[in-house]
Amino acid sequence: MNIAVILFTLGRVIAIESAFMVLPGIVSLIYKESNWWTYFAVALVGMLAGLLVSFKKPKNMQFFAKEGFASVGLAWFLISLTGALPPFLSREIPNYIDAVFEMSSGFTTTGATILTDVEAMSHATLFWRSFSHWIGGMGIVVFLLAVMPMVGGVNMHLLRAESPGPVVGKLVPKMKDSSQILYFIYIVLTLIQIISLKLMGMSFFEAVCTSCATAGTGGFGIYNSSIADFSTLIKWNVTIFMILYGVNFNVYFLILARKFKSIFKIEEVRTYFIVIAVAIGIITVNIFKMYDSFGNALTDAAFQVASIITTTGFATTDFNLWPSLSKTVLILIMICGACAGSTGGGLKVSRVLIVIKAVRQEINSFIHPRSVKAVGMDDRTVDKAVVKSVCVYFILFALIYFGSVFIVSIDKYDMVTNFTAVLATMNNIGPGLEAVGPTGNFAGFNYLSKIVFIFDMLAGRLELYPILLLFIPPMWKKH
Amino acid sequence: MNIAVILFTLGRVIAIESAFMVLPGIVSLIYKESNWWTYFAVALVGMLAGLLVSFKKPKNMQFFAKEGFASVGLAWFLISLTGALPPFLSREIPNYIDAVFEMSSGFTTTGATILTDVEAMSHATLFWRSFSHWIGGMGIVVFLLAVMPMVGGVNMHLLRAESPGPVVGKLVPKMKDSSQILYFIYIVLTLIQIISLKLMGMSFFEAVCTSCATAGTGGFGIYNSSIADFSTLIKWNVTIFMILYGVNFNVYFLILARKFKSIFKIEEVRTYFIVIAVAIGIITVNIFKMYDSFGNALTDAAFQVASIITTTGFATTDFNLWPSLSKTVLILIMICGACAGSTGGGLKVSRVLIVIKAVRQEINSFIHPRSVKAVGMDDRTVDKAVVKSVCVYFILFALIYFGSVFIVSIDKYDMVTNFTAVLATMNNIGPGLEAVGPTGNFAGFNYLSKIVFIFDMLAGRLELYPILLLFIPPMWKKH
Repeated sequence: MNIAVILFTLGRVIAIESAFMVLPGIVSLIYKESNWWTYFAVALVGMLAGLLVSFKKPKNMQFFAKEGFASVGLAWFLISLTGALPPFLSREIPNYIDAVFEMSSGFTTTGATILTDVEAMSHATLFWRSFSHWIGGMGIVVFLLAVMPMVGGVNMHLLRAESPGPVVGKLVPKMKDSSQILYFIYIVLTLIQIISLKLMGMSFFEAVCTSCATAGTGGFGIYNSSIADFSTLIKWNVTIFMILYGVNFNVYFLILARKFKSIFKIEEVRTYFIVIAVAIGIITVNIFKMYDSFGNALTDAAFQVASIITTTGFATTDFNLWPSLSKTVLILIMICGACAGSTGGGLKVSRVLIVIKAVRQEINSFIHPRSVKAVGMDDRTVDKAVVKSVCVYFILFALIYFGSVFIVSIDKYDMVTNFTAVLATMNNIGPGLEAVGPTGNFAGFNYLSKIVFIFDMLAGRLELYPILLLFIPPMWKKH
Repeated sequence: MNIAVILFTLGRVIAIESAFMVLPGIVSLIYKESNWWTYFAVALVGMLAGLLVSFKKPKNMQFFAKEGFASVGLAWFLISLTGALPPFLSREIPNYIDAVFEMSSGFTTTGATILTDVEAMSHATLFWRSFSHWIGGMGIVVFLLAVMPMVGGVNMHLLRAESPGPVVGKLVPKMKDSSQILYFIYIVLTLIQIISLKLMGMSFFEAVCTSCATAGTGGFGIYNSSIADFSTLIKWNVTIFMILYGVNFNVYFLILARKFKSIFKIEEVRTYFIVIAVAIGIITVNIFKMYDSFGNALTDAAFQVASIITTTGFATTDFNLWPSLSKTVLILIMICGACAGSTGGGLKVSRVLIVIKAVRQEINSFIHPRSVKAVGMDDRTVDKAVVKSVCVYFILFALIYFGSVFIVSIDKYDMVTNFTAVLATMNNIGPGLEAVGPTGNFAGFNYLSKIVFIFDMLAGRLELYPILLLFIPPMWKKH
């Protein structure tokens, strides 16, 4: 393990995070709040420490997959620990573990909160929570690579460890350019949403916070009622943008490159839209009798489906009160998640497609024992090693899932709360059902459960291995 | 598809089942019950029809894996449909779908019931329900092979399709001898339990029914309170026998062959006993405060753990009332199940071991990219194809599981009921939680849900493929 180059990367990540922290500091000054110093102080110390550590490039830049995993895993732990300092120092979140939970939830774009009254927070902290979604959505390491690219192998292994999906490819040959294109699309989409939400009647502050939380498919709201009290128009705006952020960003790159035909060939994106349409249809019919009009039922169904499948976690209604069928549909799309290469979490549509195809191939091998059909997607063959990795990924996910549920069940809650709370954190969704439903929160869990949730949120966002490998001693042996 | 040889096999299976049906007919006569004619009539017609169909051996005995799957899948559907006739004809179970549910639950050794009052049944039907567990536990096709062996390929493919576990091997070179040894062990164990239960104070009828249901790890009780009202001694007798039937039967073969050293080398069996001990320990500590003595807590904990991990489903207490931690432990061992090659259901300990090893290998490949360690078990290498099949099996299981939950959620029950009802039927356990808990039953579900449960019970008992393939049109194409 090349510790020097990992430290170097971590230093740069902390420096960038600290620089971002100047923004909530400015928000605090604008709203004349007393906690401005916490953001500036942590920003200053963070930048100094970060730059000090990464001032000199290490001589040995040897960097393999495991260094990539370790760097990214540690970086995400560190940004959560650091980002939690300002609200902790200002006593807004008086307990440090709670503060770390809140910021892990922010950076991992989970949106689960330990706050019982969001509206009691300062503007600065509300902005910092929402902005952490924006940073975490596209990834802080991807940002690092966009502004300060490293040497070849480092770039690739870092990007692979942070980006979601079974196969991570570059958009263009140069990694720096790929990262910059991704962030360019991300910033443009965010700006369009901010402007459109402002035009639809939100205040500028509301529009910025909501857009940041939508962009990262995070889900922190700035009101206790989340999005419920906004107009129907705004609800549809957020619905559509959530769905757009759940699309594989390759699609936007293809639009920029005017390769429209190729877009329709992407099986994952097609499936993603079909699943959304079917889920909205089933739920609308199922909840129709609870509503006064078809339109309102459709609005709430579409919003909740978009919010859950993209793992955003905004709410416009308490779906705890919906019938079992609708809740089951929500749990199924919770597990599935959005497209690979999007800001959404979950297992990813492409993984689900690959395992379904692997199952179909296995069944086929019983009927035609001598046929050797490979698993294909988008007119290409999926490598056998990828199929195996995806299958193992599902099983590892299940093992961590059930292990977490076991520990959390020592706490005082009921089964539905425990099973959905772990799913909601591992898949970076936010709300679950019962006590952690849209009107509930994670405040009542004990510290052991909260630490498990922090682990699960980070593991889920980074697709298990970068976080898991940190806890495996052989990782830390010298080369 | 060689239809002729499938029909031939089905004819023989029905003939054997019908012959077995003479026994409940005799029970009916002994207790002077009015429904004796239903058992004798179905037995007579079944034997005639079965022998007529299988009277002449087909000329073409070509028999591959797919014929094996189709024969076994259809055979199990047929025995459930036929076995349901007597209680339906005597109006004891007035609805035929309910009767099929009950007998599928019997043959698949699930033990889930649609009866709200078991004690209202005739002795004949109570015996037939319990005896169906005994027939289904070791497998009716295995029985067929023990008494009427077919030609080489037919034997192997039939046994493979019916026997549980990722790798099915013969005990001795000759298939007929293997089947006979299995049934010999099975009958001896059953007789020992009948005698010991009788000595401990049960009536002969109670001892026979309880022993049959234990042997198949089925779980149908003959009282509404299941085993709860029997003495502590009897509870421990059943606990120990349930655990014994969940052991891979290879162990008993090795005992017969006096190869004691080899037994301790079987990783699956070691793990099975460790999991049982840990689960009993956790639950005893967790429920201790609800009991007046440590002994009673231990008795109930041990009984429920043995009942659930072996997927028997007997109950001595309502574990719905236990704390979340204990219920979560029960759900985890529900998923895991017993050993391969036992009469227990579930995913099987060996499959869980193989996937954990596959995950460990994947993690290892990140740390040492150039190492090529294979997955090993019991000092041998597990074939790559087996590892892949096991991974795919888990995923197929999950797909069928979630698909079933989706359909069942259209019905009126809560989430915990739906999720555990499907798990309880697919893993052939019997009781789940909430409405289908130890004091509940499956009577309230609508027909659609019941048909899904029947499918799940059969799919679970036959390890998915024999049932699933029946519904895939290309299966039925000619060679």
